Amino acid sequence: MRDVMIAGISQLPVGEHWDLSLRDMASRAIEAALLDAGGALRPQAIYIGNFLGSVLSHQANLGALVTDYAALSGIEATTVEAAGASGGGALRAAYLAVASGWVDTVLVLGVEKYTDAIGSVQEYAASQALDYDYESTAGMTATAQSALLMQRYLHQYGAPPDALAPFALIAHENAARNPNAMFRRAIRPAAYTSAEPVADPLTIYDIAPYADGAACLVLTAADTAPASLPHPPVLVRGSSVASDRLALHDRDDPLAFDAARLSVERACSQAGILPGDVDLFELSDAFSIYAALTLEAAGLAPRGESWKMAAGGAFNLNGELPILTMGGLKGRGNPLGATGVYQVVEAVLHLRGQAGENQIPNARLALVQSLGGPASTAVTHVLERR
Amino acid sequence: MRDVMIAGISQLPVGEHWDLSLRDMASRAIEAALLDAGGALRPQAIYIGNFLGSVLSHQANLGALVTDYAALSGIEATTVEAAGASGGGALRAAYLAVASGWVDTVLVLGVEKYTDAIGSVQEYAASQALDYDYESTAGMTATAQSALLMQRYLHQYGAPPDALAPFALIAHENAARNPNAMFRRAIRPAAYTSAEPVADPLTIYDIAPYADGAACLVLTAADTAPASLPHPPVLVRGSSVASDRLALHDRDDPLAFDAARLSVERACSQAGILPGDVDLFELSDAFSIYAALTLEAAGLAPRGESWKMAAGGAFNLNGELPILTMGGLKGRGNPLGATGVYQVVEAVLHLRGQAGENQIPNARLALVQSLGGPASTAVTHVLERR
Repeated sequence: MRDVMIAGISQLPVGEHWDLSLRDMASRAIEAALLDAGGALRPQAIYIGNFLGSVLSHQANLGALVTDYAALSGIEATTVEAAGASGGGALRAAYLAVASGWVDTVLVLGVEKYTDAIGSVQEYAASQALDYDYESTAGMTATAQSALLMQRYLHQYGAPPDALAPFALIAHENAARNPNAMFRRAIRPAAYTSAEPVADPLTIYDIAPYADGAACLVLTAADTAPASLPHPPVLVRGSSVASDRLALHDRDDPLAFDAARLSVERACSQAGILPGDVDLFELSDAFSIYAALTLEAAGLAPRGESWKMAAGGAFNLNGELPILTMGGLKGRGNPLGATGVYQVVEAVLHLRGQAGENQIPNARLALVQSLGGPASTAVTHVLERR
Repeated sequence: MRDVMIAGISQLPVGEHWDLSLRDMASRAIEAALLDAGGALRPQAIYIGNFLGSVLSHQANLGALVTDYAALSGIEATTVEAAGASGGGALRAAYLAVASGWVDTVLVLGVEKYTDAIGSVQEYAASQALDYDYESTAGMTATAQSALLMQRYLHQYGAPPDALAPFALIAHENAARNPNAMFRRAIRPAAYTSAEPVADPLTIYDIAPYADGAACLVLTAADTAPASLPHPPVLVRGSSVASDRLALHDRDDPLAFDAARLSVERACSQAGILPGDVDLFELSDAFSIYAALTLEAAGLAPRGESWKMAAGGAFNLNGELPILTMGGLKGRGNPLGATGVYQVVEAVLHLRGQAGENQIPNARLALVQSLGGPASTAVTHVLERR
């Protein structure tokens, strides 16, 4: 297994791209990433993270679609699906292809066209990350499920109703200075506490908005990379996927997020680091309760106490472990199957020193985790600036 | 890159499994494959080939679903999608994971539950392999598209209307002796020529039936495999994926099947063989015209003449290059995203000497190819009995 570096990155602003189709978004992101890598690297394969193309755009077989419109027909092209962790899964597959010595340069594309459908079709689509036969058929959605998780959390740990507010505040605060974020404004604590419940106790500030997006990475082998790459190379030091029981009611401890824990352990073990060693952690705050449970599963906060640490500033940009540094899913927006690639792009910006006003000084090590469902699938990567 | 062997195989009979859900079919196939491998190998990851779970069973995130019901929660689990080539794509991903040295033992599962929907929903679903914006919205389906291809073929090469009959006859002849096939009966030439057109000139005998199915492989590294495996090991000697332009009207030569050609060239080059060296070729006859175009793309027949060779017996079980040895997609049935794994299982049966009445004597080398759409995506593997 040889070293793999991220040589190019790109992202489209997250939002409602009524004027762009799936293929438009994909080819723009690919072109921009190849350009960012200097324009000389030629990809031999592409791994596509997508969750809902089939349900919302009536389009599967994205490998052929995307290579066609990016003028890359002929190269290896497949889609990796793991619900909201699809983008992370695509990076995982691409990493193995290069690390194995099979190919030198590959693309990782995360793309999701969420606004091709409306209302109940969208909610139905996103709920396919859950167990359809035993959860969705009973009316469960990802939002309703997160409300149950949050209720259980507040009850079990005797936390106040606004315990999770800091996660929303951090996300919006950081998104305000991210030009690619969907919601570029900070919110006040009073906004959080006075919001009406969507699914009690969840309010709109606990729910990341589903949106359109496309982001792309150029991966290349360190031992064959040209000496003249335009940006400081970022190495993929750890890579892992873990699964948990799909239906929440089948888990011994629904607040444990076992796959999130396992996946962090494996990726950090490969990288030879501890989770606390990193300079930033891009985690999945598809719902604010996911952020709390992820930090606790990763051992970065005692169980039931991540919200206290968040309130104390531990996870702010100038705290001991910055999270959601460019706005997270809540502030930047959550383009589902593309989200995992956005998270990596944002971490790379920090490691390169290109994160603008949000830059974490001298960031060298980053942890990035995507979740499919409530950590039913978890994909984690450790990135390091060389 | 180290040697990878197929140590276990399983398949459910292809058909209409009204009594089995996606999860039932998946867990039965997994259990049977692990048992076939001797029961001692423990998988560290699973790669799932599935095309329509999201549209037809309202279920994505199959990694978590399948590991849950197979009591494998925790291991790495993702879905690979490439329309009808999804099963081949899953094997490709699994192969790289083991060949790279990352893990020693993994599962490849192909699963499709096609009968969870009816009529137009099914045709709509399967058409997602095409270009939705430019083909499907104009009413194009995979069947209609194949009719155009066949019409062009017959016209361009001046072939008679029943030119492609031998491919249907071979498939049904071989399926008659496959206990897992959907249509276990041979057909007469007169049945082919007297059939009413479904989409002129295509009749029902040119169209493989979409169906339910699940099949599974246990892959393990040759250098760490136990000495006591119950079956003769079969090595994966070549593995490749290639893409072509998605919409048929965008291709310079619609009869060229460039991705099928490229993918065969790459897999054979890795294995150090020529396509003609193999003892059998499991190709995709989702439509009879695909079989003809695949043989010609692979260089196994001159362009426009594969049907003549077929009529002469070249591709029969006792011919120079047997194809569709257990019934192909036409006779065994076409469980879409699972088909690629069925094709490999059937090739392994021959290489092990377990193909029953259809056994090709001393079969040592096999070529297996899956197609997504009209060779928009092509996945090819070379297998060898050690």
